[in-house]
Amino acid sequence: MDILSVIGKRRDGLGNSEAELRYLASGAGEGSIPDYQLAAWLMAAFLRPLDEQETAWLTVAMAESGDRIDLSGLPKPWVDKHSTGGVGDKTTIALLPILAACGLTIVKMSGRGLGITGGTVDKLASIPGFRLDLSPDEMKRQAAQIGLALTGQTPDLAPADKALYALRDVTGTVGSIPLIVSSILSKKIAGGADTVVLDVKCGSGAFMTNLGDAQKLAALLEKTGTLAGLKVKTSISDMNQPLGAAVGNALEVSEAFAVLRGDRLSPPVQRFRRLCVHYAAETLVACGSTTSEAEGLAIAEEALISGKALLKAKDWVKAQGGDPRAVQDSSVLPRSAVVREVRAEDSGWVKAVLAEMIGKTVINLGGGRHRKEDLIDPAVGIVLAVGVGAALGEGDLLATVHAATEEMANLAVAEVLGAIELSETPVEEPPLFLS
Amino acid sequence: MDILSVIGKRRDGLGNSEAELRYLASGAGEGSIPDYQLAAWLMAAFLRPLDEQETAWLTVAMAESGDRIDLSGLPKPWVDKHSTGGVGDKTTIALLPILAACGLTIVKMSGRGLGITGGTVDKLASIPGFRLDLSPDEMKRQAAQIGLALTGQTPDLAPADKALYALRDVTGTVGSIPLIVSSILSKKIAGGADTVVLDVKCGSGAFMTNLGDAQKLAALLEKTGTLAGLKVKTSISDMNQPLGAAVGNALEVSEAFAVLRGDRLSPPVQRFRRLCVHYAAETLVACGSTTSEAEGLAIAEEALISGKALLKAKDWVKAQGGDPRAVQDSSVLPRSAVVREVRAEDSGWVKAVLAEMIGKTVINLGGGRHRKEDLIDPAVGIVLAVGVGAALGEGDLLATVHAATEEMANLAVAEVLGAIELSETPVEEPPLFLS
Repeated sequence: MDILSVIGKRRDGLGNSEAELRYLASGAGEGSIPDYQLAAWLMAAFLRPLDEQETAWLTVAMAESGDRIDLSGLPKPWVDKHSTGGVGDKTTIALLPILAACGLTIVKMSGRGLGITGGTVDKLASIPGFRLDLSPDEMKRQAAQIGLALTGQTPDLAPADKALYALRDVTGTVGSIPLIVSSILSKKIAGGADTVVLDVKCGSGAFMTNLGDAQKLAALLEKTGTLAGLKVKTSISDMNQPLGAAVGNALEVSEAFAVLRGDRLSPPVQRFRRLCVHYAAETLVACGSTTSEAEGLAIAEEALISGKALLKAKDWVKAQGGDPRAVQDSSVLPRSAVVREVRAEDSGWVKAVLAEMIGKTVINLGGGRHRKEDLIDPAVGIVLAVGVGAALGEGDLLATVHAATEEMANLAVAEVLGAIELSETPVEEPPLFLS
Repeated sequence: MDILSVIGKRRDGLGNSEAELRYLASGAGEGSIPDYQLAAWLMAAFLRPLDEQETAWLTVAMAESGDRIDLSGLPKPWVDKHSTGGVGDKTTIALLPILAACGLTIVKMSGRGLGITGGTVDKLASIPGFRLDLSPDEMKRQAAQIGLALTGQTPDLAPADKALYALRDVTGTVGSIPLIVSSILSKKIAGGADTVVLDVKCGSGAFMTNLGDAQKLAALLEKTGTLAGLKVKTSISDMNQPLGAAVGNALEVSEAFAVLRGDRLSPPVQRFRRLCVHYAAETLVACGSTTSEAEGLAIAEEALISGKALLKAKDWVKAQGGDPRAVQDSSVLPRSAVVREVRAEDSGWVKAVLAEMIGKTVINLGGGRHRKEDLIDPAVGIVLAVGVGAALGEGDLLATVHAATEEMANLAVAEVLGAIELSETPVEEPPLFLS
């Protein structure tokens, strides 16, 4: 096969065959096709997008471009979960123990964070001792024992995606929905999953800022997943305000465990809990554990209320070498030197909590990365006390800032005040799900 | 400036500013923008083409990306000539002495050949001793003495074009008319010309195979040239049959000098002579030596008939170290061991002389390159005795094949017979100019 004809057909709107996309993916994975030719194909694919069938072909070809985790022997379903990324998105940390408590098998790879949307790997790394470098064999053994395992990215899985992803980032082709879909799903297939539940975030703190794009992404994820042989369930959730209360690594871990413990929760954390239960129910429906969404919700609630999910979380942290006390006692987690309250300067109703600004503030505090090589401070962050729709009196608590120094705290307090907009008239709490 | 925003604006159809195209060209020339980002921009530019103004900006930016030849001090006009390439196109070798005999100053860079369209550098290199590595200073000095100088490509001129041209070739973006135009004209501007005459070839033996594309290219060459401050004149000429009689390096040199000598010419060579006189007249009009095409033709004819152009050719060959006897006596040029006649197997009228097939046959004889690194045999080639429209009796001479071995000659004879198609009814000679 000839790469110039693969590029030329894409360029001219003639589409690519399964064999051509397989040639492209294996060449990208092996490094036998030069970057400049992959870049030309990527731009052609941005402007002459892959259709559903092509997206599925590319997805499977990328999944098969390297090693694959074989979960045979473990009880089915083999579940994975993905979020397109948002500010304060700690869903995986709470959802995985719930799903494992419901009897599902979860083997998941997560990424590090870059930009305002943090990474689950960074969050879990704030638990003292928690290992995120499990080998495929360790993953499988742990999943056999406790039903779940999570590790950082494994370079040998879907190397074609790794190559194309890195190039998309530097060639202005990140935003192509078919390329996003094949990137997400190829890693899920390579990771061994047969069922994938997907949280598409939409709003100012997410990659997809408008609902139309998010709906296109969600629809193509479902269609491509089905064509590629996966059971897929997708919802679109609000990311105009941060998810839950905490934004910052250890703070988010603490919030996820608070949900599992059944603590009394602030309204923003209640909203986060609703999201976890929703995706647990979706997963149960997707994998056929139940046919009814209502029953799915009831099973998930039962896993939480019974304490089974909390026990799974302890087993999980312990199995991966972390301090299991962290699940019960957040004082085991890193804590920042300075904690500062942010209080309302006026009365009114919360009109907006600008997710993007809160995310940037946490990066400025040292809790996220500007560049790949940046180190992060696991302790710092922001805990919101209110969400959109909350009624406030002057002097009411808006948030607490957790910072390494007084100077950083001062800057962050001002930024948080700028990120929380008030209205003089009542504001309704916006819906959590948008699809 | 940020290359991702330059790529993004191109991709989104928002166009690029002069500053952005200058940034792109200087980054390409210096090598500071990676190939994969240039490749992504090139594909975006293929699918979201540059408009006239953008093409002119890119052209000037590429011309200014490296050294420029400064012809100040030499008599104006400073003329350059370009052909988009065709089979048997030896126009430069005859046209430059005609123009110099008319008092114009010509400083020209020419390329080596790749594929069926040979390169002027390869043709002139068949003259014993002829140097094609003149420095800019040598070029200028020689042009001051005799009015013309020609050399091979100089790496320091328009390095941005060099980088982008190499990438276009391997990314499926060669066919973009604005990119072709900026590539051609940037080298002319860097080479110091103020007046450029362009021969756009159209037909089976040319890059542009249909008239619509050739017309688009010609129109954009004229508009871009004008916007970039050049005087430009363009015609479209027929390349369905080879130009003239000879195809092959030394054979073409010999034919060009035969035109200057005023020898008795076969009909195909008469057609080639008409083309030379046409472009000489176009050049004289373009640079303002005359306002009338008819007068331009008369001046050019006078340069030929008086023998002034022939004298210029002798001065030229001598000035560049070549054997000046070659102008008068083609036996000084390399000759092949085997010369074979190809004769008509039927009577009829010549319907087609397939330029592409003839070009490929000459490559197969060793007279052209499949790959950049191939060596060529200067002596071999084909001399056609007839053009489209010629009436033939059975056994009449169609062509002579000049080959290194009997075996190669046999193959070429068969290919020439296949390339010359006969009709049982009269065929008109097709027009030489198509615009």
